Order: sequence, then structure tokens, then C-alpha cells
Amino acid sequence: MSTNQLQKIYKGTIIDSSKNGTFRLLKGILGISTEGKILFREKEEELGNITAKYNVQKEQIDDLERNFLIPGFVDTHIHGPQYKFMGTGLDLPLLKWLEKYTFPTESKFSNEDLAKNVYGKVIDQTLKNGTTTACYFATIHLTASKIFSDLVIQKGQRALIGKVSMDRNSPDFYVEKTQDSLDQNEEFIKYVKEKKNDLVEPIVTPRFVPTCSPQMMKGLGELAAKYNIAIQSHISENVNEVEWVKSLHPDEDGYAAVYDKYGLLNNRTIMAHGIYLTDKEIELFKQRNAAVAHCPNSNFSLSSGVLHLKKLLRNGIKVGFGTDVSGGYSPSMMDCIRQAIIASKATMFNTKNPDDELSYQDAFYFATLGGASALGLDSKTGNFDVGKDFDACIVSPFVSSANFHVFDDDDDIEIFQKFLFSGDDRNILKVFVKGRQVI
Amino acid sequence: MSTNQLQKIYKGTIIDSSKNGTFRLLKGILGISTEGKILFREKEEELGNITAKYNVQKEQIDDLERNFLIPGFVDTHIHGPQYKFMGTGLDLPLLKWLEKYTFPTESKFSNEDLAKNVYGKVIDQTLKNGTTTACYFATIHLTASKIFSDLVIQKGQRALIGKVSMDRNSPDFYVEKTQDSLDQNEEFIKYVKEKKNDLVEPIVTPRFVPTCSPQMMKGLGELAAKYNIAIQSHISENVNEVEWVKSLHPDEDGYAAVYDKYGLLNNRTIMAHGIYLTDKEIELFKQRNAAVAHCPNSNFSLSSGVLHLKKLLRNGIKVGFGTDVSGGYSPSMMDCIRQAIIASKATMFNTKNPDDELSYQDAFYFATLGGASALGLDSKTGNFDVGKDFDACIVSPFVSSANFHVFDDDDDIEIFQKFLFSGDDRNILKVFVKGRQVI
Ligand SMILES: [Zn+2]
Ligand SMILES: [Zn+2]
Repeated sequence: MSTNQLQKIYKGTIIDSSKNGTFRLLKGILGISTEGKILFREKEEELGNITAKYNVQKEQIDDLERNFLIPGFVDTHIHGPQYKFMGTGLDLPLLKWLEKYTFPTESKFSNEDLAKNVYGKVIDQTLKNGTTTACYFATIHLTASKIFSDLVIQKGQRALIGKVSMDRNSPDFYVEKTQDSLDQNEEFIKYVKEKKNDLVEPIVTPRFVPTCSPQMMKGLGELAAKYNIAIQSHISENVNEVEWVKSLHPDEDGYAAVYDKYGLLNNRTIMAHGIYLTDKEIELFKQRNAAVAHCPNSNFSLSSGVLHLKKLLRNGIKVGFGTDVSGGYSPSMMDCIRQAIIASKATMFNTKNPDDELSYQDAFYFATLGGASALGLDSKTGNFDVGKDFDACIVSPFVSSANFHVFDDDDDIEIFQKFLFSGDDRNILKVFVKGRQVI
Repeated sequence: MSTNQLQKIYKGTIIDSSKNGTFRLLKGILGISTEGKILFREKEEELGNITAKYNVQKEQIDDLERNFLIPGFVDTHIHGPQYKFMGTGLDLPLLKWLEKYTFPTESKFSNEDLAKNVYGKVIDQTLKNGTTTACYFATIHLTASKIFSDLVIQKGQRALIGKVSMDRNSPDFYVEKTQDSLDQNEEFIKYVKEKKNDLVEPIVTPRFVPTCSPQMMKGLGELAAKYNIAIQSHISENVNEVEWVKSLHPDEDGYAAVYDKYGLLNNRTIMAHGIYLTDKEIELFKQRNAAVAHCPNSNFSLSSGVLHLKKLLRNGIKVGFGTDVSGGYSPSMMDCIRQAIIASKATMFNTKNPDDELSYQDAFYFATLGGASALGLDSKTGNFDVGKDFDACIVSPFVSSANFHVFDDDDDIEIFQKFLFSGDDRNILKVFVKGRQVI
């Protein structure tokens, strides 16, 4: 028996985005293989015909009825350890927030029990909110980062996981020596790669320029190249941060140029925020084909500012969305979609340009396929194109405990909108990653 | 036996705001009477002492342990019928949204079954989200509005309910004749008053100036005076709306002056939005002691703009918060708190004035006692001062299905913040209005 044999057919309303970002609502069927891949995607036919055409048993056909399928969400920027204090400490701007809340909490992840506890919970929470792919920051701790990768594999989420690097401008209790950090990073990269899990990969993770010496950045750039892996960090989140980077690297032509100098800005790079990128830096991102992770909840919560998303898009920059837990207070990509729309409206109120507003269809794209593209995973996930892995949520708009109701005359688009704006994880009945049910 | 005898004592963490808006966290006890009033509020003592001091049985003492009490939320602006399409149709600005979504839906409330269905659901939803007081718009329909008031009384929510008035610039299928509307309004006012329910009162409800003729506004002003009842409407939500009012009333000195001319702007008036109020209008609001209902979700969703909340407050204007379902897509005042903070940050990003940012403590005040004050109900509800009705939520931060977790070293303030930013109705275990458990 082939491992890529037809295992299951979903029949009903299938919602996703096309490669070029178009919103799609299909009344049809999706065939899933025993390997968890999408074998076919077709318009609805008679159930009788399906069983005959594909030679399947009726039990293999899952009729969604008034539930519907959406691709799993892709969170392109989330800090696993910060789930511990998610929702608290949002009274300070970035640099003070790091000092008062983040560094003290992250430093505690030398404790393996804490790591197991918090990492287990953040994976569970994001999965139940429909996040099938997450791009995680861990902490500086090698052991805890290994634990994190073990848990992700065990729980079946698709993920990139980075052991954080920081060797300067950090508190005494939470800082690394440069060479130790590079060595441990290499050990972590090898550890994850040796798992040969096709869902989880390591990612090189300098915290951000202020906490990484030139030697550190250079070494990390070399590791990324040596192992051909992705890179994540933060950039231009906050005015004071940008000034700080300028003062640390007065000879470089901007924040992005610093990363670029050390081989950390390429087509596998995703940088969170980018609110204050200059036109010149945007051009550099474009040349390098680097991506931005837009984290609107965090940008509001830490009073960082509002990203002019449409400007990045008009300049051809790849963009994904991120919760940035816990600069952002929600583990849900649905919250991220809502706040990205709000942020776009805040921009539009200033520019008076109606094209600066983000539609819900576009926001849905960025929270799924757009994020997958930003992470270089769009050949595997992000929508229901044939050949991709089945990373999906079954959504029910009829959960009695939910915060909205469907009425008899609501059409499919209205029901989807109600879910997107007024629904939550209660409406996400089942979650699949590469065909495996994880919720 | 006195009807105001001690019935129950809650012991534990009690969180509310003082009369002047100060955030309060009390480790203590709250005594509730058989009539649902707060008899005393004291710092924690030994359980043994309590039973002795107040001569109560142990069974009458509810130890909250790590749960906590907050006042029920006050939603100062919500459209009951619009719950039907909440979450949909947010792709249009106000005036087109009214035409395409709102008027067609509201017109269907001539159907009593629909009214029963939708009104029942919106009351249930707001109650389970902890809204113990709501200030509702119904539709133009007398019978449906009566049904709404019956349901509110039956379900035990504290509410003001207004039959909507509109006699011009409205579609043929959803418009009233002036005198019919005034007559039916008076009948509705009498109907609600005759219930002699101390939780529910009628409120005079011109939709907004563009849909109300001068005769209508004059008649409604007279009804409000005759029955000494509150008034609600909309004002200065959207730039085109403000222009429209100017063209309809060229001789009046602004939007607020129109309401004022017809006796609709006084100390029992609450006007939704007020984004584009001029300094002169703010001064008029102050003189009349009229209130503004701030509805940030709606203001973002309908691309109306951002209210400069702190400017109103500095000018001494009373402010409450509102969900404005379904210009806003959430029935939750916790969403409203979060979006009000976001809106204040959007303002602050422009003004660069740090004082324009709203703290979570202040937002909590406006969603509870501030709203009660704006509605003229602060002698009865909004916080746990002795003598007020017990309108309260018991919050549990330990609900396994919730979207956040409490960790061992979280303190009370951190737990409260987690609930406020990352929690939802799942964390609201019980809801009381005047001592009666309604959820
Ligand atoms: Zn981050
Ligand atoms: Zn309204």
C-alpha cells in the first residue's frame, strides 16, 4: 500500500487564499492522503459519485455540513517563554519592558521544570487557537530550548525554534559569552536537525542588534549559512531602540544594514516589527527578499507605533503576521487579524488613503499563506493547494458557548465573517498538522 | 424579618474603582443583603471572627479563594437588533453601512419571533460577558420593543431600553410618521414604567439628527421632560454625517446645538461617539452635563475615526464605554476596554502626549463606574460601595479552557491583568444583578 494513498475526503465549505492572495470559498471536496498531503481539490459532486470516482468507503468521507475548513494559522513571531507573563506588564515601552518583565522571566528558564510547564502550555494554547505553524523564540538556555523542540515535536505543531543569542547590553543574570553562545547554538541546531522531524527546524535567533556584539552577529550569520537555516530577529520596533542602534553602529547606514553586514538579512530572514524602517532599508529588505513579521497587538501594547503595512506591501516586501506573545497579549492569530485591520485603519485615518486599509480577506491571507511565504514554508502549508500538507482547522459556527450566533438567513461569507471577527478558539473544533489531528 | 437582612458574605479579593476613579484591590469581605444591596465592605478578618461579628452561618460565607469579584460591566451603547448581523458587513463606512446592512435588518423586527430570538440572544450574550447594565437601542417597532423590555426583565439585566425614532431620510421600508412615532414612544415609555421593575427604564431614542425631523426631536424632548427619563442618540461619529447635519440644519451652531435646541441635551443624555465634536460643542456638553458613550471597536470597524478620549475628560465630560454592537463586532466590555486602550495609543502616537494614553485601571473604571455615572445610575451600580446594589461578576482565572494561565508566582494584580487582557467570558463564572444570580 502506497503511503500516499487516499485516506479521507472532506466535503463542504473550504475557505483559503490562492497563491496570489485571492480569497477563495469552495463548495467542494478535499482529498487527504495517508501521509497527510492534499491529493485533490474539486468542486462539489454528489456523494454517490465521490465514492465511485475515488473508490472510497462512505466512512472515509467527512461531510462538514455547516462547519467549514480553513488553513491552520501561521504565527511568524512568538516568544514561547513570555507566555508565562502574557497579559501583564503592558504599562511600559519596549526597552523598559525588557528590563523589568522580560529578562527576569526569561532568565528563569534555566529551570527545566519551568520550561516544560510553560512551553507545553504555549504550544497547547496556540494549537487550540488554530496555529498550526509557529516561529518561536525560546531563551538563551540550551537545555530549555531542547525541551521546547521535544515538546513541539511531541505535540505535532509545525515550528521554527530559535535559541536566543545575546552577549551585550543585557543584565548580569541573563547574558551569554559570545563563543559559548555560538557553540550552544550550533549544538541546538544539530540537535533539532538530528530529530529528522519534517515539521520542526531550528532558526538562528539574535535577540536584536543592541544585545548582540558584532562577533556574535557574524558568528550567527555563519551558522545560518553553514546549516542553510532561517534567521529571525527584531528590527525598528521603537524609536528609542532605533536611536540606540544608531549610537552602537554609527558607521552603518541604518539598522537593517547592521544585520545585512553580518549575513543576517536574506531570503530566509524574518524580522519582527519594522515600524520605523526607512525607505532605504525597505529597499534593502526588497533586495535581500527578507520578510517582516507584523505584530499589531504588541505594537499597540508596548506603545511602539503603527506599522504602515500597505507601504511595505507596495514595495514588494514579504509580510507575515505574528502574535508576539507577550508584547502582544493574545495567543490567537484571530486577534492578530483584527488588530492588523485596526492598525491599518489607524494608518488610514492619518494618510486619508483608502488603499491603506486592510480588508479581512487580505488579513486572513497574511495570517495563513502570507505567513507561510514569509517563513519560506509556502510549498508545504498556508492553503489547500494540491500537494501541500493538510494543515487545517475545522471551524464550527454553531458552538453554543461562543460569542456569536448564526441565523437562518446568514450566507457562507457572513458566517465566515462572524467567525473571523466575533469567534474564538471555541469555534475551532479540530486542528490538523500534516493530516495528524493535534486538537 | 427585614428585607434588608444580611444574606451572604463574600470573602476574598474584591476589585473595583472608587468614586473618584481610583483602582482598588481589597482583600476583604463584602456583605450582601436579602434585597441584593451591599451592606458592608471591610478588610479581611479571620473567618471565625466574621461568623461571630455578623452572626452568620458558615454556609453564608462564600470564600472566593483565588477567584475574585469585580463589578458588573456597564455597556452604555448597544443596539439589540444588530446582534443579528454582528461581525458582518464591516466593509462600509457609517452611512452606507446603515443603508446596506442596518436598516434592512432592523426593519425585519416587525416580526415578533425574530425579535424574541435575537433579543433573547443579545441579553444572554451580554450577561455571560459580565454586562450587568446595558443601554439598548431597539428598533422603531413598538411590539418588538415591548418584547425586548419583557425579556430584559425576565432575564434580570439592568437596562435602559429605547424604541428608536426616525421619520426622515430613511428608507421607505423602515420609517415612521412623526406623530405615530411620538404616540408609540409614549406608549412604550408607559409600558415599561408600569412594570415598576427597579432595574429597567425606558430611554428616549432619536436615532440621530439626519433621520429625525425637527418636530420629531421637539416631541421627543418633551416626552423626556414629561416622564423625566434619559435620552440617547448618536453624535459626530463620521465626517460625512457631520457635514450632512450641517446641511440639514444650516442655522444651528453645530450638531450638538441641534439636539440642545430640542431639549435633548441634558444631564440624563448619553450620546454615542462624539469623535468630531468641536471645542464649542464640548463646552456645550459640559454646560448641559451630558455624557459621551465611547465605542472604540465600532469607531475602528466603521472607519469612523479615533475619539480623543483624554481631551473630553480634561474638559470634564462624563464618559462611558459602549460595545455599539454591531458597529462593533464584540458583545464584550472586555474587548471594549482593550480597544479603548488601543484607540488612546493611536491618539498618543499622533499627539506625542503620554498623558493621552489610557491606563488599564482607568479603562476598567470607564467600563464599570464611569459608565454607570454616564447613565445616571452611579448611586445604584458601578462599584462595591456600601448601599449600592450588588451587580457583580465572580471571575476565575483558573478555567482550563481559557486563553491564559496563572503561574504560582503571579500576584493579584498580575492575575487581574491577565484576565483583563487575555481572558474572556469563560473566566466569568457567575454574574449577579442586584444580588440575583443571572449567569
Ligand atoms: Zn518579539
Ligand atoms: Zn450606535
